[in-house]
Amino acid sequence: MDPRIRRHADVLVDHSTEIEAGERVVVSVPPAAEDLAVAIYERLGEIGARPVMLSGGTPIGSDRATRGYLRAIEGDAIPDPDHVEGLFADTDVIIRARANENVTEKGDVEPATMAAFSRAAEAARSEMLDSRWVLTQFPTPANAQLAGMSTEGYENFVWDAIDKDWAAQREFQAQLVDRLNEGSEVHIVSGETTDVTMSIAGNVAINDYGRHNMPAGEVFTAPVVDSVQGEVLFDKPLYHQGREVENAYLAFEEGEVVDYDADTNEETLGEVLDTDDGSRYLGELGIGTNRDIDRFTYNMLFDEKMGDTVHMAVGMAYEECVGEDNATNESATHVDMIVDMAEDSRIEVDGEVVQRNGTFWFENGFEG
Amino acid sequence: MDPRIRRHADVLVDHSTEIEAGERVVVSVPPAAEDLAVAIYERLGEIGARPVMLSGGTPIGSDRATRGYLRAIEGDAIPDPDHVEGLFADTDVIIRARANENVTEKGDVEPATMAAFSRAAEAARSEMLDSRWVLTQFPTPANAQLAGMSTEGYENFVWDAIDKDWAAQREFQAQLVDRLNEGSEVHIVSGETTDVTMSIAGNVAINDYGRHNMPAGEVFTAPVVDSVQGEVLFDKPLYHQGREVENAYLAFEEGEVVDYDADTNEETLGEVLDTDDGSRYLGELGIGTNRDIDRFTYNMLFDEKMGDTVHMAVGMAYEECVGEDNATNESATHVDMIVDMAEDSRIEVDGEVVQRNGTFWFENGFEG
Repeated sequence: MDPRIRRHADVLVDHSTEIEAGERVVVSVPPAAEDLAVAIYERLGEIGARPVMLSGGTPIGSDRATRGYLRAIEGDAIPDPDHVEGLFADTDVIIRARANENVTEKGDVEPATMAAFSRAAEAARSEMLDSRWVLTQFPTPANAQLAGMSTEGYENFVWDAIDKDWAAQREFQAQLVDRLNEGSEVHIVSGETTDVTMSIAGNVAINDYGRHNMPAGEVFTAPVVDSVQGEVLFDKPLYHQGREVENAYLAFEEGEVVDYDADTNEETLGEVLDTDDGSRYLGELGIGTNRDIDRFTYNMLFDEKMGDTVHMAVGMAYEECVGEDNATNESATHVDMIVDMAEDSRIEVDGEVVQRNGTFWFENGFEG
Repeated sequence: MDPRIRRHADVLVDHSTEIEAGERVVVSVPPAAEDLAVAIYERLGEIGARPVMLSGGTPIGSDRATRGYLRAIEGDAIPDPDHVEGLFADTDVIIRARANENVTEKGDVEPATMAAFSRAAEAARSEMLDSRWVLTQFPTPANAQLAGMSTEGYENFVWDAIDKDWAAQREFQAQLVDRLNEGSEVHIVSGETTDVTMSIAGNVAINDYGRHNMPAGEVFTAPVVDSVQGEVLFDKPLYHQGREVENAYLAFEEGEVVDYDADTNEETLGEVLDTDDGSRYLGELGIGTNRDIDRFTYNMLFDEKMGDTVHMAVGMAYEECVGEDNATNESATHVDMIVDMAEDSRIEVDGEVVQRNGTFWFENGFEG
């Protein structure tokens, strides 16, 4: 086994979830990530935890099996697999790994059926989120193919992004977290195409150093719902339900998206925005800080953490980001989109520059 | 996909477990049986049942992961994975498939650790047995190798044994079931080496037509515990914990094994008999009736159903076989061993021959 797989497992078990003797663990991995499962189980054995394995990919099983089920059941009345809630109710920690054999395996399932399936699994998902949990990626040939990379090159990319000094990363990010939590207004400018302001007053910035996502590496919060004003060109592609939306453009007035377009698959962007009332408002502002993620790989678990980027998500806000006096944007969707901030760009907080062309004020001491 | 895999799935879902719309199902399959999982999920989708997939092989996960866990945890204090009981408690039906990539995957785990693992999973197993359940085999190259067969030859063997007219098989076996339930004493003779009598008075013969095992094809009951008298040479090999015991010989007095030997691995046989008090008494007498199983494959799920054989198990008796006025043989083990009855052999019930050289009395009308 590649020694980086055991290191990956140690990061998940010891850093992300801090599993202790006797704790009840669910390891949810697709067959393609069996090596990672083996390494996780070895570590859990050393600790004396109690693992059970779900065959991951989806809440009910492997991608191929789930596709077969969804094509057979059809329609929009999919029964809730509620017996799995009994498992999660007694579970302390859930470790989930993505690992595809074919990233388009469910490409011929009707979108309405996919949406119904997502609703059916909502209670189980909610029960899962009540445990300590972490989501990660195992590098398969199919995931490398989606990234346009060789398998070995993709393995290097994934494990470089994961095998980091997370304590140091946490400290690095804490400086930005503190600045956001003290601030009120964020102003983001990139080239001629992005110029947007939003209030974060009273909301909470979160330091993502690997508690729920591995790789980690972002600082994120929620904008005050009706405060977003201006326009954004998301110049990194949006990859949503198998379709690539290039150069998505959103214009905001009092928080609401009042205009949009895109160079490709504009109708996909429109469908996202039309999901419900909340999907026309931002639920998240995130700033990527993981500089080992130095390329776009069509995988949001990595892309949103990319160094020198910001991302904004239309739809649902995370409750942990919303202060008690502020409203939470609610939506069935949460779709992240990314702006490259490496050149001709800046982030200001209350009129002070905190990042210029990807470099933070505390890195080279430029005047804020 | 081989069309026989979908037929296999239909037998499991429609015949063995009779799954209905809305029922909660756990599909427990190793990665090597993913095709079968896909076919089962398709059928469950057509029905509108609710599947969840456990990555089978063991109660906690894949064989490789379980091996890693057990070698890391060591010793005989393995914590119970009791959170999985919450899943099984709400489950209507469990479909389990065996499918190995390497049948000796756990060959370097200490026997004491394996035994401790088995005890740790006892509560979960017991909860599983309270559901409707079926156990089956998916034909992998490794399982073919254990059988000494080509993969294609083994696939033919497995699916021939499974794709049968189970209603007709049930009727065929019912004649033997009735005869055993009316009878009191069974006398089994094979060549010069096997001559054993036992009482079955008051106990119950069960018609195995595929409710819990697929393939099915046996009639089985429990001997009255202290009634077994005589000697048996089990001339089909016993394959136990990776070791092959050839020509196991047992001599019984008042039900108890008072002498034993074997041509190979006699100490393995001794370990089985020394498990506990109940492991020196018979818990089961079975008569194989599936004539598509025409060869020994080192897999008890098939071997015990082989046409023209009988098998006896030392150890635990199945409660369903024991009449209310009789005692149940209790033991932590249950090890089946097989006698070939194809030649120079007969089974008598209360002095009447019911099978001679593998042929039943109702098949050719010989005098009983």
